[in-house]
Order: sequence, then C-alpha cells, then structure tokens
Amino acid sequence: MTALRNDRFLRALLRQPVDMTPVWMMRQAGRYLPEYRATRQRAGSFMTLCTTPELACEVTLQPIDRYPLDAAILFSDILVVPHAMGLGLTVNEGVGPHFERPARTPSDIRAIGIPDPEIDLRYVIDSVRLIRRELNGRVPLIGFAGSPWTMATYAIEGRGTKDFHVVKTMMYREPRILHELLEKLARAVVLYLNAQIAAGAQAVMVFDTWGGALSTPAYEEFSLRYMRQIVEGVGKESEGRRVPCILFTKGGGQWLDLIAGTGCDAAGLDWTTEIGAARQRVGGRIALQGNMDPAVLLATPERIREEVAAILRSFGPHAGHVFNLGHGITPDVDPENAGVFIEAVHRLSAGA
Amino acid sequence: MTALRNDRFLRALLRQPVDMTPVWMMRQAGRYLPEYRATRQRAGSFMTLCTTPELACEVTLQPIDRYPLDAAILFSDILVVPHAMGLGLTVNEGVGPHFERPARTPSDIRAIGIPDPEIDLRYVIDSVRLIRRELNGRVPLIGFAGSPWTMATYAIEGRGTKDFHVVKTMMYREPRILHELLEKLARAVVLYLNAQIAAGAQAVMVFDTWGGALSTPAYEEFSLRYMRQIVEGVGKESEGRRVPCILFTKGGGQWLDLIAGTGCDAAGLDWTTEIGAARQRVGGRIALQGNMDPAVLLATPERIREEVAAILRSFGPHAGHVFNLGHGITPDVDPENAGVFIEAVHRLSAGA
Repeated sequence: MTALRNDRFLRALLRQPVDMTPVWMMRQAGRYLPEYRATRQRAGSFMTLCTTPELACEVTLQPIDRYPLDAAILFSDILVVPHAMGLGLTVNEGVGPHFERPARTPSDIRAIGIPDPEIDLRYVIDSVRLIRRELNGRVPLIGFAGSPWTMATYAIEGRGTKDFHVVKTMMYREPRILHELLEKLARAVVLYLNAQIAAGAQAVMVFDTWGGALSTPAYEEFSLRYMRQIVEGVGKESEGRRVPCILFTKGGGQWLDLIAGTGCDAAGLDWTTEIGAARQRVGGRIALQGNMDPAVLLATPERIREEVAAILRSFGPHAGHVFNLGHGITPDVDPENAGVFIEAVHRLSAGA
Repeated sequence: MTALRNDRFLRALLRQPVDMTPVWMMRQAGRYLPEYRATRQRAGSFMTLCTTPELACEVTLQPIDRYPLDAAILFSDILVVPHAMGLGLTVNEGVGPHFERPARTPSDIRAIGIPDPEIDLRYVIDSVRLIRRELNGRVPLIGFAGSPWTMATYAIEGRGTKDFHVVKTMMYREPRILHELLEKLARAVVLYLNAQIAAGAQAVMVFDTWGGALSTPAYEEFSLRYMRQIVEGVGKESEGRRVPCILFTKGGGQWLDLIAGTGCDAAGLDWTTEIGAARQRVGGRIALQGNMDPAVLLATPERIREEVAAILRSFGPHAGHVFNLGHGITPDVDPENAGVFIEAVHRLSAGA
C-alpha cells in the first residue's frame, strides 16, 4: 500500500503530538453535498449506493476531494450487518430504515446466523479495498459498524422508534433472548471489523446511536458489555501500525469513565458534554473525538469560527483531540459552511 | 382550606424525614387509564379537557382515586402559556402539539404580550381552585409550567422537532431575538405559577423537556438562566408552608450541579442518571425526584419491584427522595402495573 501522507488523525487518536487538530465530520459523505445527491440519484436507491463498491467509493471520496479533511470514512450503513443476517433492510432517506423481517421471537433470534463478511458483506469489504486504492495515501480510512444494542433496536422494532417499547419490553421481560441477539451481533461485528481492517481500514469506530436511551445499569449490561467484546476482539495492528478503535455512544456523556474502561483508544462525544470537563475525567486514558453541535453549521461563518475556538479552548493544548461534530452533518447545511468549519479547526489549532 | 392529611411529598422535597418514600408519576392523569380515555372522549378534544375546569379536575383526581399516590398534579399542558400569547395551539394526542401562528420573526416576537393568568389563563387557575377543593386535603397539588426554552422550541418551530433547526438557527444567528422571547416567557411563567400558588398549588414544577438538546454553554444561556429567573420569582410560601420548586431538565443529568445552583428545592432526574451518584453530587443541597425508566412498567410485577428496589437502594436511606418515573407514563402501560409500582415504592421504603 502507498505510504500515508497525513497521519494526524491516527496520531491524535493515540494521544501523540500533532501539528494541528485533525478534523472530519460524521456523515461527511452525505446529502448536504450536491455531488453526493447526484451520485445518489444515479444509483436509484440508498441500498444500491451502499452495495455497489464503485459508487460507495465515489461518495466516500467526494468530501475528501472538496475539503482538507484528515480522515475518510467508508460510506455504508450501520444496519448492513442485520441486513446480512437476513432481516431485509430498506432505507428511505428522510424516513429512515425499515426491516421487512424484524427479529422479535426467540425462534427468530435463534435462526439468525453470523454473516461471513467476505461473502455476505463482500460489497463492503470490496468497497474498503477500492477506497484505500483510490485514496492513495492521502488520509487514513475509517471502517465502522453499529453497536450491537443500536442494531438490535432496529432489528427488533423493525424501524426507528421514539420510545423503544418493543426492544425494552424484551429487555425487561426476556433479557436472555435479547442477550442472545446481542451476542450474535457482537460476534458478527468483530468478524466484520476485522475484515474491514484486513481490507485496509486504518481505524475503526462503533456507532452506539441509541445507548443514551438506557439507564446506567441497562447501558452497562446491554450496550457497553458488547462494545467491550468488540474492542477486545478487533485487531490492534495492521500494516505495522496501531489500528485505533473509537466508541461513540450518543447521549453517553455520563458514562465516559465506563467507556474509557473498555480498552478503546478514543470516545466520541456529542455536543451536550463539555469537552474540557470530559478531558479532565478521562483524557489521561483515551483520546476524545467531537463535539460541535451540527446546528452551528447553520449559523454565520463568524459564529462557526467562534464555536470552533470555544471548543479548542475548552479542550486545551492538543494531544488527544480529533475535532468532529457531535452528530452527523445534516442535509440543510451549506457546503461552504462545512468548509469554514474545517478550515477554522486547522487554522485555530495550528501551533497550539 | 382543609388541613393536608398526607404531606410526605412536601416533606421529602424539603429533605425532611418521612415514614416512606413518596411517589407520583409524571402524566399520571393520562391515556393509560380507561377512565381518562372516557372523559377525554366525552370532552371531544384535548384542549377542551384542558380548558374546562370540571373536566380538568375530574381527570386530575382519577389516579388519586385509583392509587395511593402522594401528590396530584394539575391536568394541563406546558404549551398553554404560548397559546395564551396568541399562537393558536392545537394538540392531537399521538401526533403532538401544533401552533397555527409560530413566532419566528423579530416582529412576531415583539408583538407578543405577557398573559394575565387570572384573565388569559383563567381556566387553569379555576381548575387549580376546583381541584384543591375536591382533593379536600388528601394529598398536595402540584402546579406546573413549561420551561421558557422548551416552550420556545414549540413556539418557534410550530410543532415538535427532532433536530431543532429553526430554533437553533435563531439561537446561533440571532440570539438577541430568541432572548427576547425567552424573557417574555419567563416573566409569563412567574406570573402564571404565582397565580397557581395563590389559587392553591402547594408545590410547583418546571418541565424542561428539551434542555437536553443543547450544549452546556447554550443550556446555561438559553434554558437554565430563565429557569433561575422563575425560581427567584415564584412565591416561596403559601398557607404558612414552603412551596417547593422542582426543576426537571430531561437529559440534564450532566448539569445537576448547575441546576442545584439555581436555588430550586429539587431536581427531576430522567432514568439515564444513576440516582445514587446524583445524590452524592447534589443531595446535600437539593432533593431528587425520579427516576425509573417508564418502560419498566411494561415488564412483569416482579421485575417492576426489583427495579424499584434497585433505585431505592441506589438512593440510600431516605430524606430527600420523591419517587417518580424518569418521564411520563405511556399509554400502553397496564394500569395494574402502575399500581404494582406505587405499592412497591411504599412497601420497600417503609422504615428504611
């Protein structure tokens, strides 16, 4: 493979010195970009975009071509793993994902097998290989998966939910059945992320979008426990370098100490947690990634720069900070404002 | 007025000794109760239920008649204040509230006046008087209002929102305009809660349902600051007793120290915060109200009792705990399970 020309992102995740704070944006390959919308339209459906390596590669690179970002992230969806388990995913952007065959009964769950990533998720692994080749050493490539708990909420509810009543009824009534599904999802994710690493992913991230819907003991038992299994199971090194692992529980600011205890290299933060306070709590153990409110990108360039400056100031002298949004960039953002954000992170952190 | 026969709730809010932990449930007068659904149907619309004191009184008392609850809460809606400001509220249960004339421009906001509660919200104040009479000293009556920030999100967006983009665009682009609205809402709430207290409310609670959508500095500037104004402005005593004030920011577990600093008597907790840890942080300054995941009420009676026991154990010896759910009880709960919950709180805490 070509040598990596910008390793700021990987160094920051390992809390090594960097010349400036690296930055990327969750959902940076997305609908706010006109070039994404054009490719998406050409693909016809979101799933075609995900399952066609040439198209997934194309949209992954679009933000890298447009902005001086410090990392690329594989274009895919957190629900391709339960899709590969046979649940029948469709995604209507704007409406959300839907499973044709949700897994709700003990026999549904027992029938689920562990997908072989090189066969059942071949399109993702091929995408990783293609993206690495096309990136050609410009920036590192992040691989990712959904957390077992977050995937289970969709697999059981069949779709997005506000109150999680189907999955929580199972959690409080039949926890063993839910654990059986979570166990399968965790094993599947370990295989899946290791296949991504073997294909060229240089860091991995686990998205726990819905961990924040749980009580603290339920978070430990039903979400964190399985993310710990993933941290323990994924390869730590590839191509002679450490492959950092990032855990991101949205709404998980109260559980940073628990997250740091899993052995992960970094934790993602949403914008509700003050990053300076978070660094005081866990910055000696892990790196932090985040955490500007994505809605700031709807403001003026001056206001965006102020907010970037405030977050950099709150974090303090760098080593261990990857700048990001606290959640995905939204379709209504002006691409110029995304550029202002990225440029501000670099300029305001250089030499800090 | 008739002497209060059960003051456990008021004593716990002031961290005074009690014989057992008092309990009530957010949204206890609600759709999970068949008697509520019957009255609601008779009323024809949710707003008729809110604006007719006899009906509001009837549904307020229904859970008190059915269960040994330690407090009644006025049946109303957090959005009657912006409704009284002329925004035109309709509420379709299951769909959510909607304002016909959202306040989005500087001139919309400048045109808004402060409602006189005895005139513009007379139906609420009359309901409070009627409920006090009908309660006849059984348990104390809680008055309430929405937090200025939470009411503003609906007043500006016009309806519920997932990403708060309209109100956040205003917050990040034109904060002064938003402050003007929040200032008016805070002044209106002070008058409104004081009128409720004068009419017989024995404790007051401010519901900040959406404070948790904010970053820490934005929470302090746009939500907490106005709740502090309310705490400072509401009457502290009535009928010779302290009128405790409870602040509840859903998703605000990280900000408990800030909340305790407002001078409120108690903070509501959602279920994501461990109540024992919360007590260690602020239990010497304020009482805590909460915090069982409402979804536990979908489980078996045994599991409900286990969860109640775990929360009581986590809080530790009482003085300063009002048991509640971490959010409103949901329509799909079996009323028998609500009874199991209430009975368990009393039985498991008696003599602790």
